[in-house]
Amino acid sequence: MKKIAIYPGSFDPVTYGHLDIIKRALRIFDKVIVAVAYNADKNPLFNVSERMEMLKKAVKNFKRVEVDSFDGLIVDYVRKKSAAVVIRGLRMISDFEYEFQMALTNRKLSSDIETMFMVPSDSFSYVSSKLIKEAASLGAGLKGFVPPYVEKAIKEKISKAKQ
Amino acid sequence: MKKIAIYPGSFDPVTYGHLDIIKRALRIFDKVIVAVAYNADKNPLFNVSERMEMLKKAVKNFKRVEVDSFDGLIVDYVRKKSAAVVIRGLRMISDFEYEFQMALTNRKLSSDIETMFMVPSDSFSYVSSKLIKEAASLGAGLKGFVPPYVEKAIKEKISKAKQ
Amino acid sequence: MKKIAIYPGSFDPVTYGHLDIIKRALRIFDKVIVAVAYNADKNPLFNVSERMEMLKKAVKNFKRVEVDSFDGLIVDYVRKKSAAVVIRGLRMISDFEYEFQMALTNRKLSSDIETMFMVPSDSFSYVSSKLIKEAASLGAGLKGFVPPYVEKAIKEKISKAKQ
Amino acid sequence: MKKIAIYPGSFDPVTYGHLDIIKRALRIFDKVIVAVAYNADKNPLFNVSERMEMLKKAVKNFKRVEVDSFDGLIVDYVRKKSAAVVIRGLRMISDFEYEFQMALTNRKLSSDIETMFMVPSDSFSYVSSKLIKEAASLGAGLKGFVPPYVEKAIKEKISKAKQ
Amino acid sequence: MKKIAIYPGSFDPVTYGHLDIIKRALRIFDKVIVAVAYNADKNPLFNVSERMEMLKKAVKNFKRVEVDSFDGLIVDYVRKKSAAVVIRGLRMISDFEYEFQMALTNRKLSSDIETMFMVPSDSFSYVSSKLIKEAASLGAGLKGFVPPYVEKAIKEKISKAKQ
Amino acid sequence: MKKIAIYPGSFDPVTYGHLDIIKRALRIFDKVIVAVAYNADKNPLFNVSERMEMLKKAVKNFKRVEVDSFDGLIVDYVRKKSAAVVIRGLRMISDFEYEFQMALTNRKLSSDIETMFMVPSDSFSYVSSKLIKEAASLGAGLKGFVPPYVEKAIKEKISKAKQ
Repeated sequence: MKKIAIYPGSFDPVTYGHLDIIKRALRIFDKVIVAVAYNADKNPLFNVSERMEMLKKAVKNFKRVEVDSFDGLIVDYVRKKSAAVVIRGLRMISDFEYEFQMALTNRKLSSDIETMFMVPSDSFSYVSSKLIKEAASLGAGLKGFVPPYVEKAIKEKISKAKQ
Repeated sequence: MKKIAIYPGSFDPVTYGHLDIIKRALRIFDKVIVAVAYNADKNPLFNVSERMEMLKKAVKNFKRVEVDSFDGLIVDYVRKKSAAVVIRGLRMISDFEYEFQMALTNRKLSSDIETMFMVPSDSFSYVSSKLIKEAASLGAGLKGFVPPYVEKAIKEKISKAKQ
Repeated sequence: MKKIAIYPGSFDPVTYGHLDIIKRALRIFDKVIVAVAYNADKNPLFNVSERMEMLKKAVKNFKRVEVDSFDGLIVDYVRKKSAAVVIRGLRMISDFEYEFQMALTNRKLSSDIETMFMVPSDSFSYVSSKLIKEAASLGAGLKGFVPPYVEKAIKEKISKAKQ
Repeated sequence: MKKIAIYPGSFDPVTYGHLDIIKRALRIFDKVIVAVAYNADKNPLFNVSERMEMLKKAVKNFKRVEVDSFDGLIVDYVRKKSAAVVIRGLRMISDFEYEFQMALTNRKLSSDIETMFMVPSDSFSYVSSKLIKEAASLGAGLKGFVPPYVEKAIKEKISKAKQ
Repeated sequence: MKKIAIYPGSFDPVTYGHLDIIKRALRIFDKVIVAVAYNADKNPLFNVSERMEMLKKAVKNFKRVEVDSFDGLIVDYVRKKSAAVVIRGLRMISDFEYEFQMALTNRKLSSDIETMFMVPSDSFSYVSSKLIKEAASLGAGLKGFVPPYVEKAIKEKISKAKQ
Repeated sequence: MKKIAIYPGSFDPVTYGHLDIIKRALRIFDKVIVAVAYNADKNPLFNVSERMEMLKKAVKNFKRVEVDSFDGLIVDYVRKKSAAVVIRGLRMISDFEYEFQMALTNRKLSSDIETMFMVPSDSFSYVSSKLIKEAASLGAGLKGFVPPYVEKAIKEKISKAKQ
């Protein structure tokens, strides 16, 4: 039986840190579904279809990866997709606490769903979508943090917002 | 292709927390090898064959679980077993830091090995072999922490040590 | 002299985790005043009188518990009530840091006020009002997290907000 | 009914940080029993009666404080003393994790025992018996960390050990 | 060559904790530039020129301190000022994580910029601008947290906001 | 006046992480004294002169670096050397807590001594002497962790110890 892992998140936008986790998950699971959450972020920079488009471009050379979106509870989405497991990247202690809390809550909501945590490469351990957007709004270049077309998209959004 | 996960540790002795992780891992992987480390603990209460024996008893009703031991680097053992992944239980922040450090070190030693972290049931989140041995040496009952035959074995070891 | 403990918070809404702390505090103190803070949450789901009503229902079988509300500094409220101590539940490291900071600040504002921390049952250690409201807004059932009438009240609020 | 709190520890030796916690606990409880643990430290600098003697000297002006020692499980000692609660000082995150684990373990061993955590004055938040002994063995003065007779006792022990 | 350190922040408003760090930095560096960030806080209580004015008053007796403001990336500002290093105060674990992330991001943006962390006096370790503003809005006195003219300015702002 | 920084530690043995901190410190201070502590480690792998020899080899191309050793309190050594500051590398939360405690203790012992913390490159953030020695004793190669002659020295020590 094929082992499917769901990798949920806001991906607003996708970073090299996310791609690193996807690559690592592909070594272990037969299929990875990257699932963009509708509700995760209150003031997203990109809407869900923009985020999915960038993700699709980023994973176009990876076989066995599907990009999708979901609304509602992750546990319901996981069941619908007959997935074995939710994967999450862990970078920091504060990540860990929140993720731990989410994993236990999800388990209470649906006892047959497991969350597994993966550690990104040390080069990406401090990269977050939030920090990247902040840095970009202050004029920073984003090389080494996100793919070039994501950098371009961020800069366009920010320059529009400033007009 | 079968997905094999290695669950390494000192298991000195096995607790209900360990068994909880093993059950959860079996939902995701085709086979789980519980691997008792020779070098992990400096002053173990039980020797490696005693620890393996208790583990074998504890998992005798789980199909797809193998109990083994290893000496040397975990990355070499993982490769020898053609495993996809190392799994570790995470209970606490201090676990997290050490495990994070180990996962990155192992990745540097062998770039194709991934570590995944699982969260035990909240009923077991504070149970550790170390705390259990301390409690037993002070006279505590261990019901709810370890299987009955493990409790009996701990008490025998401790009463011998006091003679 | 009767020992009175103040248990302040936003209680937006009360959870089984809060009730667990109240029960434990009653073993130690002669009276526990559950004090709903006016200022604690910027965008509360329930107003203060709704929160107090749910709390009163939740503690109606506990003798020696009073439900109240307060505006302004907790240290002033504690003095007004001639209480010995402020109690707070601790679930996580991030709780701990914030609470530690608050306890030291309150001590500086009023040197005779002590804060004591209690640990909720492991079954409730990951339950927070915030997480519960998020889960409910995504359609989750709340059995095991809050009393049935609280679940009902949350769902009504959320369905109104969506209209 | 009188509210008794047990303050257990190794007190090897007593510091101003410990005394700060004792004073604070006396505001809340009718009686505080400072209980020196036989088993807590593997290589103590002082034996249990030396530690008790220094503690007795340190609290001789506090009414309602008793200095005692105990062997075995703290939960058994608490029950024997008909105490309401165990109190522990919290200084650091790493304290918090260990203490949290102990509190939950003790609750499992004896469901009617509560642990409450208190925060020492910010002037003592980084003072630990361990650090003080290390500093003394390197020649540091201990003024502001421990009472004068404790400093003298530490220095005598250390100079004997070096002979 | 003169060693210049940049101490950036929102300083909304300056506290005794900030002044403690500035004094400590002056022991090590030839010059300290306190740099108020335009972008750091979304809803500041004081505008940048008010914050700078209070800072100038607070450091008027310190030689070798300059108060300035900056817009954009801190790494660009540091280069413009030919500074050797960015200094940041560390009070808490949560500070540490965020600061660590920022230090690594800044290093990636500009490899020749170093961040150094200093620890404030234990009397100020829990003082933050945010907590002070919260306490003031609930009616607390701020003696021991901020200079008298800062307390006055906060209270005026808050009473205006409430009108 | 020349700014001297002391970088104390056990350096048992020097790693690329230590060298990274030294290089960074040289950008800020006129001179860096790497000071091997006699008392830091109870069971060192290398004696102080072996550790100093490896350090000297490692820094031989850095001007303005001195390798030394010290016995007793770091605050006394710092004063003897007329240094401005102690520098320490911070990698992890657990480092942070211990270091924070040490910095405050040293300040109490000698109020004019400052500790500054630096963050190593992300490639070295998980490298510790302890982990390296453990990995080597299990047969791991140490390329990328320590200089080649340090790897050789470790392996010789370990093979001797096993005879």
